[in-house]
Amino acid sequence: MTEKAYSQDLQRSGKWRHIWRIAGQYANCSIFDVRDHDELHQILSGLPLFPFMEISVTPLLRHPSAIREDDR
Amino acid sequence: MTEKAYSQDLQRSGKWRHIWRIAGQYANCSIFDVRDHDELHQILSGLPLFPFMEISVTPLLRHPSAIREDDR
Amino acid sequence: MTEKAYSQDLQRSGKWRHIWRIAGQYANCSIFDVRDHDELHQILSGLPLFPFMEISVTPLLRHPSAIREDDR
Amino acid sequence: MTEKAYSQDLQRSGKWRHIWRIAGQYANCSIFDVRDHDELHQILSGLPLFPFMEISVTPLLRHPSAIREDDR
Amino acid sequence: MTEKAYSQDLQRSGKWRHIWRIAGQYANCSIFDVRDHDELHQILSGLPLFPFMEISVTPLLRHPSAIREDDR
Amino acid sequence: MTEKAYSQDLQRSGKWRHIWRIAGQYANCSIFDVRDHDELHQILSGLPLFPFMEISVTPLLRHPSAIREDDR
Amino acid sequence: MTEKAYSQDLQRSGKWRHIWRIAGQYANCSIFDVRDHDELHQILSGLPLFPFMEISVTPLLRHPSAIREDDR
Amino acid sequence: MTEKAYSQDLQRSGKWRHIWRIAGQYANCSIFDVRDHDELHQILSGLPLFPFMEISVTPLLRHPSAIREDDR
Amino acid sequence: MTEKAYSQDLQRSGKWRHIWRIAGQYANCSIFDVRDHDELHQILSGLPLFPFMEISVTPLLRHPSAIREDDR
Amino acid sequence: MTEKAYSQDLQRSGKWRHIWRIAGQYANCSIFDVRDHDELHQILSGLPLFPFMEISVTPLLRHPSAIREDDR
Repeated sequence: MTEKAYSQDLQRSGKWRHIWRIAGQYANCSIFDVRDHDELHQILSGLPLFPFMEISVTPLLRHPSAIREDDR
Repeated sequence: MTEKAYSQDLQRSGKWRHIWRIAGQYANCSIFDVRDHDELHQILSGLPLFPFMEISVTPLLRHPSAIREDDR
Repeated sequence: MTEKAYSQDLQRSGKWRHIWRIAGQYANCSIFDVRDHDELHQILSGLPLFPFMEISVTPLLRHPSAIREDDR
Repeated sequence: MTEKAYSQDLQRSGKWRHIWRIAGQYANCSIFDVRDHDELHQILSGLPLFPFMEISVTPLLRHPSAIREDDR
Repeated sequence: MTEKAYSQDLQRSGKWRHIWRIAGQYANCSIFDVRDHDELHQILSGLPLFPFMEISVTPLLRHPSAIREDDR
Repeated sequence: MTEKAYSQDLQRSGKWRHIWRIAGQYANCSIFDVRDHDELHQILSGLPLFPFMEISVTPLLRHPSAIREDDR
Repeated sequence: MTEKAYSQDLQRSGKWRHIWRIAGQYANCSIFDVRDHDELHQILSGLPLFPFMEISVTPLLRHPSAIREDDR
Repeated sequence: MTEKAYSQDLQRSGKWRHIWRIAGQYANCSIFDVRDHDELHQILSGLPLFPFMEISVTPLLRHPSAIREDDR
Repeated sequence: MTEKAYSQDLQRSGKWRHIWRIAGQYANCSIFDVRDHDELHQILSGLPLFPFMEISVTPLLRHPSAIREDDR
Repeated sequence: MTEKAYSQDLQRSGKWRHIWRIAGQYANCSIFDVRDHDELHQILSGLPLFPFMEISVTPLLRHPSAIREDDR
């Protein structure tokens, strides 16, 4: 399965909430909505290019000023 | 106007697309959908606490693998 | 409530799994076992000295080589 | 098409506003005047040497002290 | 002996107290309880993949707020 | 003399070639066309806010791909 | 007790093995020979200026090429 | 022409004012006295090993406390 | 004694070989020719503004390509 | 001559005063007592593995609190 198909399946399931290209770089900025760190690691390490990727994870949570409940 | 009201007005208008709290920090990670850098700067410099904030902007665009057209 | 009492209550509940002093620094290295990032942020922002602390969070999960199931 | 021809076409169109050599380095500092981040990424990723380049983008806008209107 | 067997033997002996996976990275965060730096270096340099690993050691000690005596 | 008047005089003289605002920051990115480093330092140290500014200078020169001769 | 007297007592006991001034800085580079990290932290946190010091600890051990047994 | 001959020709001409070895590194610290950044870049990019060198340029000028006029 | 007089005395003695201003900064780049690190530290710590300065020292030596013997 | 023999000869001569292993790394922390930077560079560049080593030198001197005169 290609990176694109893999990502789009997870986007449809709601676990890979957002993906944006970073301008001028072969890189992306993504938001995941997962049960725990274990599920996140399974998703990321399942990427076909995982062994060649440099990934850093920033732990996020709902902001008290957010107007949407489901944007956890 | 408080930070919260200011942010929520812009969230309702669609310009401040997302806001998340970064775990363990008095900081946020936000996504803006604006016309250009001028509009972005007007929004950010309009924050009541702007003179005391450390802000860095990462330029994003739609990713070719994104399944949603409006998640620019 | 002091930092010490606050931390020890959470250690007894199992949420603050470990706390070590970093040699030569007024700092600690801690392991939390929480439901999600929201619970982690509530714990950390509840620390009496939170406004004066510099905190960075590294997301961890069970390692496949770990011999203990409950050391998530 | 060579890097030079590619760059000069975009300079003539007005999208690649300025390009300078950084002294002592095989590197440049450039100013782009584009519609949005998508157009910028198309330009940068179209460079023949893009896969081998390390690029960082700083988002700019017109400065209130600038004397020229078209130096956005 | 594999990395896994090597690590698990040391976990059973109590010298390799904890091992966690860092989410999104082929990396771990571990806690050792050893006699001195010499024993720590022997353990780390005995890892089959040691020549290819980037390791940094943070010296820890029991925290005065810790509720457990044996979590040195 | 204000920062703005000081900068605009130098822009009119051609020595302060460009000035842009960096989005989200109380900062600018400027291009100077001066005789030598001495003249540059005189200009920068003449800024009313110079004692409170953090300045870094990147030495530039005309790029061989530039289409304009006077964009030194 | 002054910093100097405190340091010299520990030097005489053999625990503070070496202390050098770093040229051009109000800083030192020291070697300690202590039982464990707890003893090291007690020594460092006992310095009268400890609350104002920035300290980093590098864990050392005897090098296999060292000609002296007691230079642990 | 070797690096050494190339450098010594420029030292004799007065453009490469000083060159020192940095202790413990295959690197040097040099002072150039050139007309402009273009001449500096021509000199540096003319080094036989230029494609393999990592160079950073710090723009200098005469210091008001310098006792020599020609040490620009 | 002012910084200027202090520096110029040492320049005349040959110990403070060179001093340049770094463009755009209230900072200098200096070359010292001293007997040892002790003499260097005495010179630097004797600066009236020493307690407020951030100083880093790079150890230099004569380069094998230098054409001058006395530019140690 | 091996690294070990080379180092031990210099340790016996008193020029290579101390050598320690850094825990968890194929690296060492060493103290040299040499006449000048030239002698230091000759020693370091004479190491058989010098072309593959990353070395940084911190200039040290006797600390006013040191109890030993010969620990320069």
